[in-house]
Amino acid sequence: MIIQMKQNATKKQYEKVTGYLKEKQFEIRDVSSAHVMVFGIIGDTSRIDPHDLYAFDGVGEVTRVSTPFKKASRSFKREDTIIKLPGGVEIGSDMFVMMAGPCSVESEEQLLTIAKGVKAAGAHLLRGGAYKPRTSPYSFQGLEEEGLKILRRVGDQTGLSVVTEIPAADLLPVFERYVDVIQVGARNMQNFHLLKALGKSTKPILLKRGLSATIEEWLMAAEYIMAGGNEQVILCERGIRTYEKYTRNTLDISAVLAVRELSHLPVIIDPSHAAGRWQMIEKLSMASLAVGAHGLIVEVHHDPEHAMSDGAQSLKIPKFKSMMTSLGQMADVLGLRMK
Amino acid sequence: MIIQMKQNATKKQYEKVTGYLKEKQFEIRDVSSAHVMVFGIIGDTSRIDPHDLYAFDGVGEVTRVSTPFKKASRSFKREDTIIKLPGGVEIGSDMFVMMAGPCSVESEEQLLTIAKGVKAAGAHLLRGGAYKPRTSPYSFQGLEEEGLKILRRVGDQTGLSVVTEIPAADLLPVFERYVDVIQVGARNMQNFHLLKALGKSTKPILLKRGLSATIEEWLMAAEYIMAGGNEQVILCERGIRTYEKYTRNTLDISAVLAVRELSHLPVIIDPSHAAGRWQMIEKLSMASLAVGAHGLIVEVHHDPEHAMSDGAQSLKIPKFKSMMTSLGQMADVLGLRMK
Amino acid sequence: MIIQMKQNATKKQYEKVTGYLKEKQFEIRDVSSAHVMVFGIIGDTSRIDPHDLYAFDGVGEVTRVSTPFKKASRSFKREDTIIKLPGGVEIGSDMFVMMAGPCSVESEEQLLTIAKGVKAAGAHLLRGGAYKPRTSPYSFQGLEEEGLKILRRVGDQTGLSVVTEIPAADLLPVFERYVDVIQVGARNMQNFHLLKALGKSTKPILLKRGLSATIEEWLMAAEYIMAGGNEQVILCERGIRTYEKYTRNTLDISAVLAVRELSHLPVIIDPSHAAGRWQMIEKLSMASLAVGAHGLIVEVHHDPEHAMSDGAQSLKIPKFKSMMTSLGQMADVLGLRMK
Amino acid sequence: MIIQMKQNATKKQYEKVTGYLKEKQFEIRDVSSAHVMVFGIIGDTSRIDPHDLYAFDGVGEVTRVSTPFKKASRSFKREDTIIKLPGGVEIGSDMFVMMAGPCSVESEEQLLTIAKGVKAAGAHLLRGGAYKPRTSPYSFQGLEEEGLKILRRVGDQTGLSVVTEIPAADLLPVFERYVDVIQVGARNMQNFHLLKALGKSTKPILLKRGLSATIEEWLMAAEYIMAGGNEQVILCERGIRTYEKYTRNTLDISAVLAVRELSHLPVIIDPSHAAGRWQMIEKLSMASLAVGAHGLIVEVHHDPEHAMSDGAQSLKIPKFKSMMTSLGQMADVLGLRMK
Repeated sequence: MIIQMKQNATKKQYEKVTGYLKEKQFEIRDVSSAHVMVFGIIGDTSRIDPHDLYAFDGVGEVTRVSTPFKKASRSFKREDTIIKLPGGVEIGSDMFVMMAGPCSVESEEQLLTIAKGVKAAGAHLLRGGAYKPRTSPYSFQGLEEEGLKILRRVGDQTGLSVVTEIPAADLLPVFERYVDVIQVGARNMQNFHLLKALGKSTKPILLKRGLSATIEEWLMAAEYIMAGGNEQVILCERGIRTYEKYTRNTLDISAVLAVRELSHLPVIIDPSHAAGRWQMIEKLSMASLAVGAHGLIVEVHHDPEHAMSDGAQSLKIPKFKSMMTSLGQMADVLGLRMK
Repeated sequence: MIIQMKQNATKKQYEKVTGYLKEKQFEIRDVSSAHVMVFGIIGDTSRIDPHDLYAFDGVGEVTRVSTPFKKASRSFKREDTIIKLPGGVEIGSDMFVMMAGPCSVESEEQLLTIAKGVKAAGAHLLRGGAYKPRTSPYSFQGLEEEGLKILRRVGDQTGLSVVTEIPAADLLPVFERYVDVIQVGARNMQNFHLLKALGKSTKPILLKRGLSATIEEWLMAAEYIMAGGNEQVILCERGIRTYEKYTRNTLDISAVLAVRELSHLPVIIDPSHAAGRWQMIEKLSMASLAVGAHGLIVEVHHDPEHAMSDGAQSLKIPKFKSMMTSLGQMADVLGLRMK
Repeated sequence: MIIQMKQNATKKQYEKVTGYLKEKQFEIRDVSSAHVMVFGIIGDTSRIDPHDLYAFDGVGEVTRVSTPFKKASRSFKREDTIIKLPGGVEIGSDMFVMMAGPCSVESEEQLLTIAKGVKAAGAHLLRGGAYKPRTSPYSFQGLEEEGLKILRRVGDQTGLSVVTEIPAADLLPVFERYVDVIQVGARNMQNFHLLKALGKSTKPILLKRGLSATIEEWLMAAEYIMAGGNEQVILCERGIRTYEKYTRNTLDISAVLAVRELSHLPVIIDPSHAAGRWQMIEKLSMASLAVGAHGLIVEVHHDPEHAMSDGAQSLKIPKFKSMMTSLGQMADVLGLRMK
Repeated sequence: MIIQMKQNATKKQYEKVTGYLKEKQFEIRDVSSAHVMVFGIIGDTSRIDPHDLYAFDGVGEVTRVSTPFKKASRSFKREDTIIKLPGGVEIGSDMFVMMAGPCSVESEEQLLTIAKGVKAAGAHLLRGGAYKPRTSPYSFQGLEEEGLKILRRVGDQTGLSVVTEIPAADLLPVFERYVDVIQVGARNMQNFHLLKALGKSTKPILLKRGLSATIEEWLMAAEYIMAGGNEQVILCERGIRTYEKYTRNTLDISAVLAVRELSHLPVIIDPSHAAGRWQMIEKLSMASLAVGAHGLIVEVHHDPEHAMSDGAQSLKIPKFKSMMTSLGQMADVLGLRMK
């Protein structure tokens, strides 16, 4: 950690803060120039929140030189983490994994129709929301536990593992009974109470990036889960909030590269929530594959115009099929596999 | 709701979406020009999510013309909501309410020292975190239930109502036992599971704006609580996330004006989290009073350099006192009161 | 244009604004519901700035239903605009065009070395800055006119067309003498004085998106140039400013899809300025090709560590070569060509 | 400047970059810990662009420890800069300066009416646009030179100094003839060609903050002007672009405090462009005074509904008058003066 004093800081202020840090068993190395006092501290800096040092008068800027995450860091574990699911599905390897399905589970019939369609097209997991986080309390809130049961039955019938979002920690036992991969929604990415609970789960966690989360905060959210003992975390970029409103969110495709450099965890992309427009999904999916994501989670519906939520960003089944063909061709060129 | 078709939309596409809406009992009023097909729909549009209409081919832009929130809306209730607490404290009236205290409850002694200091300076409520949402799992996480008990005892001893943040719905019974005002943190603003639970509480809720929440989403979060039956919601602007990094967040002071126009709910400002630097707190507090906020929530510590969290943005007690004097003088000029 | 009155607007306010618009020869079509007064206006709305209508009391929300750009709009011209350069280079067709070269022209020797390298690898245009927009007045500002002359000589010698950034309108005659494609930098995207001057030029214009420009503003900047008579505009996405700081800017890859839907103009990507890190360039280039961009502009240097600017985001020549090979393979699969 | 190597950097990479810096006459001070190599460099670091060091393999993070601006910095000059205009007007002292007038100069009659109104209310300068930067080429572009002449005549007649925006460097001689304070618009804040030209002017420059400029970039733009020899720069915060769309821009009121800490230059606020809604102007003006701005620039029109631009954010003259009264009362309490 590097601490730079303000330009008008006094020697006494410098001594106060360095004294405090020495007491805490840090070693101080001075790097001051003629114009400004600067020093580095050597020791286990994960014990200090850099922000707290600003409480000392005269402290100007505090810069961390090691990452705040440990278990999630590539310097902690060099090899890519690969998460294995039944049927030979691997997330994080050279397999490009497709998760597909409707925004909401609406009925067993609806889900089965879609599941069969995406399975036939080559999808590896079935997605579908049972507890829906809706911005309006007056919108459809999901089938809840009944939705989980439908997911399980349809997953078993089609041979697809299922992934769905958990709304709160107290529902974890129910989710563990029915679900293969538990999703943390973007709005809950810093729901630390939930993250701690998931650290005790045996299920892989799909952790969506928060609407305005930095890459570091996102990896710190993964760290919360891993610190609890569950190291099976899949990161999911789903667009960030910016000033641009033509798309629902701005897909931060470079984040995939950042995550793969900083961490060993797998990272996938959700183009549906990023764009909010089904017309953009295929091209964004192609770009996601090209940039090096480990997979996609895509909304698919057999009748989007009558979907109970997110019809606007759902692909119809035939469109999903033709997209899978295009992705397959590109995967071949890139030396990746989709089976 | 106004629906504008794309410029290349066909008459058939127009008829499909209008037919669908007519079936749902909406009245259609055409406003098309030579260049583009446009129509308005009349009826209870809160039943539709505008985003869902994009599922229809040819739909270009959907614009809501009534606000999506009802109970939180000023057109629903014209008079300002005033929330009353023991000791004549009113939030939402011509009283400028001061909530002050440490970031974290660290011990009974610490809290009592600070509580006495802020009470003597004229504060109306005591703040203090018991369950701390920290970005690192390795940071101090708060005294938890023990912290709530300390808050209650110190509140009773000093005659201050207490406000603190709730991390999850399942802790609501404990919070109701010890706390006067329950805070929803910025990171939980769209934790709908929690908001629904708070709709059943009898306690006033202090609802912080999310890090990148729009004003509309913030009011919709209030609507969740109100829809459940609890109409005592206090909004709190605490800075939003922008590209500017000199301050911890960017205080969106105009949001106070927007909220007071759109809603009848009281709105206060948290300058400590907005700025992240104690040096800015007094001036931002003055500006908050001038702009028309109903109060402030400010971090105060007797020894910020040794605080367990957020020392950098905490005022020392004497500084808080002199700030109260300045605020009092300005409140007089503005015809507001602090007692 | 749709005008929605505030919920507490009066009939009189409604009549004032509609009366004003009728006087201006617009037709009014009412779409009011029980709760809110709303009306559409029919006529040439490009004559009004929607923002100006807010000057009328009671006006709540004004929504434009036709795009504000005309000549740049796909509804004005359906076929893709293709810009032709010597040597069979086409920007906007099925050709994926590569522009490459150093950030700054440093010397004839430097530029020639790089130009030969990128030409051999298959690049179509040579880039290189002569007038450098640097954030610090104390940084290297470019070789200026001498740089343009070098560009011209090296372009002629290697058979590459040259593209470089113009800093101000009064330099246009000099640029027209030496340069094939004139670039407008991100910081000048709304320098309307410059855009107007370029409307009179006979050279194609490469228009970079502003640091925080919306897609609509970007197309309006193109409209400025086209309104002056120059319809050869190439759009260039180069990353937008967001809260995320891991990358220099956030590459908004979806903007390519938006532009291709809204406009007939070609659109390319500058991954170097988006990422700011050479390590990310290849993967972002692959994603740019996959998403449907018409080409790339990439910084390449034979000795980045000693470059006078932007070494951090420059590819070395061998790296550029291997990237060209990968791009070529992917272009084949996508049915695009690079020759 | 502190350079931190990547966690997997090699000793050789460390030696290459330190060797390069030693050659450039910098002194190296090592602060490495067990986990990461870190060093500081001592010397005139304004000669290096920190970004350029990333060109070296293994370099992870480069942090500047001194500000990149010099003449604009408070450590360069401790006392507040005060800019003096005829009639005892001082910008940067304990005087709270009011600049007011229409968005556009529309006619001599219009401007005179407004100028008399704002003068009578206590304004110190007259604003009014002659060259208008409009997002659409089809909107009113201003009266241009004729507008400057009107401004001069009306300024002389009412005894008000005049301020207006310059669109390009080549118009500087004309502006110097007619104008007292030359404004650089937000969209030109990084038009370095223009900034360099203004460095040679004898007139004070009002430098608006760019739409998404950081505080550091804004001060660097001031530095450009000052480096040229013109040290009379007034900074103007006018709202920044964020995801929030209820207001036209987000007023970053904390920026005033940042500027006053980092620099000796005066800083004023433009609440009209920040909010884009006249209803918010008075309260934001009060907040601006309370936070410590040195003045305001406000749009005022005698007939906003028929203004040729920005009517929506213009105050009517009587409203401006009553606002001046409120500001005067608050200035008294704060120990500031408005005369």
